[in-house]
Amino acid sequence: MLRLDDLENGHVIWQDPSMFCFGVDAVLLAHYPVLRKNDRILDLGTGFAPIPLILTAEAKKRDLHISVTGIEIQQRAAEIARMSVEENCLGDQIRIIEGDIRETGSIVSPASFSLVVSNPPYMAKNCGLIGGDEARAVARTELKCTLRDVVRAAAGALEVGGRFALIHRPQRLPEIFEEMRSARIEPKRLRFVHPYVSAEPTMVLVEGTRGGKPYLRAEPPLVIYREDRTYTDELLRIYGRKE
Amino acid sequence: MLRLDDLENGHVIWQDPSMFCFGVDAVLLAHYPVLRKNDRILDLGTGFAPIPLILTAEAKKRDLHISVTGIEIQQRAAEIARMSVEENCLGDQIRIIEGDIRETGSIVSPASFSLVVSNPPYMAKNCGLIGGDEARAVARTELKCTLRDVVRAAAGALEVGGRFALIHRPQRLPEIFEEMRSARIEPKRLRFVHPYVSAEPTMVLVEGTRGGKPYLRAEPPLVIYREDRTYTDELLRIYGRKE
Repeated sequence: MLRLDDLENGHVIWQDPSMFCFGVDAVLLAHYPVLRKNDRILDLGTGFAPIPLILTAEAKKRDLHISVTGIEIQQRAAEIARMSVEENCLGDQIRIIEGDIRETGSIVSPASFSLVVSNPPYMAKNCGLIGGDEARAVARTELKCTLRDVVRAAAGALEVGGRFALIHRPQRLPEIFEEMRSARIEPKRLRFVHPYVSAEPTMVLVEGTRGGKPYLRAEPPLVIYREDRTYTDELLRIYGRKE
Repeated sequence: MLRLDDLENGHVIWQDPSMFCFGVDAVLLAHYPVLRKNDRILDLGTGFAPIPLILTAEAKKRDLHISVTGIEIQQRAAEIARMSVEENCLGDQIRIIEGDIRETGSIVSPASFSLVVSNPPYMAKNCGLIGGDEARAVARTELKCTLRDVVRAAAGALEVGGRFALIHRPQRLPEIFEEMRSARIEPKRLRFVHPYVSAEPTMVLVEGTRGGKPYLRAEPPLVIYREDRTYTDELLRIYGRKE
């Protein structure tokens, strides 16, 4: 059963909630990298393509031209993502490829992207229960690709100086850094996402540069809710509900 | 010229401000690890021994017995640290050794500590100016020991399951994790220290476990000042000025 949602940025998105729905993590990740003119962007594990749809809307606001390629292993998700591309008339900017992240090197040209983004499955295999049906499990658990697969795919696709932005669980930060560095992507920016200002972070945004020099900039906490459970100003801005 | 300061925890400390003075970083680090009964603690680069003096005061409050060994390369600092140990009648709990962190393995028994702490020089050599005199430079810049030296000294001194707690600059977090993991100290806790809640962190507290399994707990931000520039409640508690 398909549903059409308004992204409130000029674009709409088709989703099948019986498979999964994109979450705040995709939205935060799409707003994390600073877009540059003519960015050629690769989204590893694009799902219903929320990130390409947000990135192109943001680029339009700032009068930048970008192109985004999304790779998605689940055939049905890739089909639905293509429906959204057509629905928004974005066929000249967004390309959706049904494929396996582990084969990125044979799907796209090596070293041809200026930015790679990924909101990959967070849960290691054999780590906690795999709830729900297969579509959801593949999106959430490392059944079809590990963190290492994602980082290596990113490294292969990035030009030297290109950026890789990732959202993941803070619990895995040492592993994230280790995989990035061993793939010669130096972590350059880090931001924790906290549900409340005095709570532990539940997500972490990391951006690295292919071939960059060591120097991490740790950023202020990104807080989702105020004490009264309404969105913070920053979240309202990200969701386009506040200037 | 020596000065006697009140730590406001029952202990006093001798310092020579013409060499250096301990900062908020030493205080935060001393409060970071959760003390356990009979902890045998090693402080790498103890300076005037603020960390041993705070740890023993905290342990006394909680009726725990601990012992602390501090290694300090600067002869004069080690002498002054010993004056404080005597001044507080802590000779049975704190031992100050003048020595080189890089020779920890021959100074103390290997694998004999349950907790190692270090507030090492933050600045990499050849990175920025070395201001001031030599005493200050040795305390702040990696002239006499690198991050790798400190982590390896900690790993050698720790029993399996023992903890290593460090305060450092966030900029070097990827390197900190890498050095810890390569010395088989798995990062288990992480906390950023922010001057203000919406500011970038200026310090990071990290605790790892020798031989631990990967799973990092990222903690809520530790914020030093409120918007009105007074200390936050947490800092007042750390400084013993609030229950």
